[in-house]
Amino acid sequence: MSTGSIRITGLRGIPEIKPGDDLSGLIAAALRDTPAVPVAAESDRGIVIVVAQKVVSKAEGCLVKLDEVVPSTRAQVWANQYHKDARVVEVVLREAKRVVRMDRSVVIVETRHGFVCANGGVDASNAPPGNVVLLPEDPDSSARRLRRDLEAATGMQIAVIVSDTFGRPWRRGLTNVALGVAGLSPFIDYRGQADTRGRPLQATMMAVADELASAGELVMGKTLGIPAAVIEGFRFQPAEGLGRDLIRPEEEDLFR
Amino acid sequence: MSTGSIRITGLRGIPEIKPGDDLSGLIAAALRDTPAVPVAAESDRGIVIVVAQKVVSKAEGCLVKLDEVVPSTRAQVWANQYHKDARVVEVVLREAKRVVRMDRSVVIVETRHGFVCANGGVDASNAPPGNVVLLPEDPDSSARRLRRDLEAATGMQIAVIVSDTFGRPWRRGLTNVALGVAGLSPFIDYRGQADTRGRPLQATMMAVADELASAGELVMGKTLGIPAAVIEGFRFQPAEGLGRDLIRPEEEDLFR
Repeated sequence: MSTGSIRITGLRGIPEIKPGDDLSGLIAAALRDTPAVPVAAESDRGIVIVVAQKVVSKAEGCLVKLDEVVPSTRAQVWANQYHKDARVVEVVLREAKRVVRMDRSVVIVETRHGFVCANGGVDASNAPPGNVVLLPEDPDSSARRLRRDLEAATGMQIAVIVSDTFGRPWRRGLTNVALGVAGLSPFIDYRGQADTRGRPLQATMMAVADELASAGELVMGKTLGIPAAVIEGFRFQPAEGLGRDLIRPEEEDLFR
Repeated sequence: MSTGSIRITGLRGIPEIKPGDDLSGLIAAALRDTPAVPVAAESDRGIVIVVAQKVVSKAEGCLVKLDEVVPSTRAQVWANQYHKDARVVEVVLREAKRVVRMDRSVVIVETRHGFVCANGGVDASNAPPGNVVLLPEDPDSSARRLRRDLEAATGMQIAVIVSDTFGRPWRRGLTNVALGVAGLSPFIDYRGQADTRGRPLQATMMAVADELASAGELVMGKTLGIPAAVIEGFRFQPAEGLGRDLIRPEEEDLFR
């Protein structure tokens, strides 16, 4: 955690991403063109790159052509009831290892990765025409590859967060969370540390990777083509953290 | 939403807060002593002040002396089972208008305000000895008063977020969210706007007040006595937003 200032800057100039594109090369180029970065390079701190899942998925070819999808009866019935595209519903159900809620036109599933989210992360916004975009096959591996390539391209110490926009129960609106993490721990664990009066802090394990993802979202306009952000000044220890560790294990889950 | 850089700085030098303290005066003084602020003052943009609920509650006297609490049988049974202080459990149950889950040593309640959170926001960390701290009576009113007084003291355009640290289902670790909001809309609503290909974005209403609260947390060390942060460079339209609007209405809640 930083005790000074953190600066968050959107990375501009990243073009529309197509399958096979060199995403890390494009991010590295955008980083070079961003006036903010020299500050980080001058310091001995690393930087955090937050990348929207959407461009990671597109670069990795995680797309489904809707023309090739034959919807099941279940998908058709649901789609008819709520005026949705049965092929998209079919893709959502295929991404699900468990349907958590299917009610009032909302489909919340647990994806094969373990993420609980609306529509299993399947999204038509900013997708090539006739396609939907899936979540990356393994967001932690995506983050790890991006980190390796960005560190090689820039010579800087870099952590990477692959982020997506999720809803949550009880609170309206969406926030960004971390799907994949590389190069930092997703948590800061205060358990066992003392409060300002010297008494132990209880049950306080902050999901900093999610907070960094949310902070990055503040400069990543969905309508502006800014799919990545650089966060400078956040002090972190390089660590082999995983976004997967942010998923609450089944045995701790009170809301299955 | 900003298209440039956002800078987030912890406000230092705010002393331990006691009931009746002039919190806005102390924040205004810390703001004057923070080197970051001139940047914001030079621009025509406003700044966002994120304040930890804990200090707001303490300044407002939202404390309960545990010596004066007589636990109910229900609180005693639960406390015995999980080795907790029955008086604290009693206070939690008094703050609850509904118990959402009471299982595996975790008590998740809907508070009288409508927030769904562990222990109803009742917290012993950083509390005066023998006391627990409650959530503010009306966090939106708290934010509104702080905003009014901070604008008067600084002459700047200011939005205020009163934030707290909440858990969430399905994901491990805690993140900061906005309980009270003044001076900005808690949402950026992309519904009806077009993606980069000109197609309408669907169901995308970002809870930016929660994202700002999370961003602020990154510099507000729980062990460092930094109970507030200033966020510069986040473009927002002054608006009469309410943190209360972030609470999902009962009829939209699939997880009651």
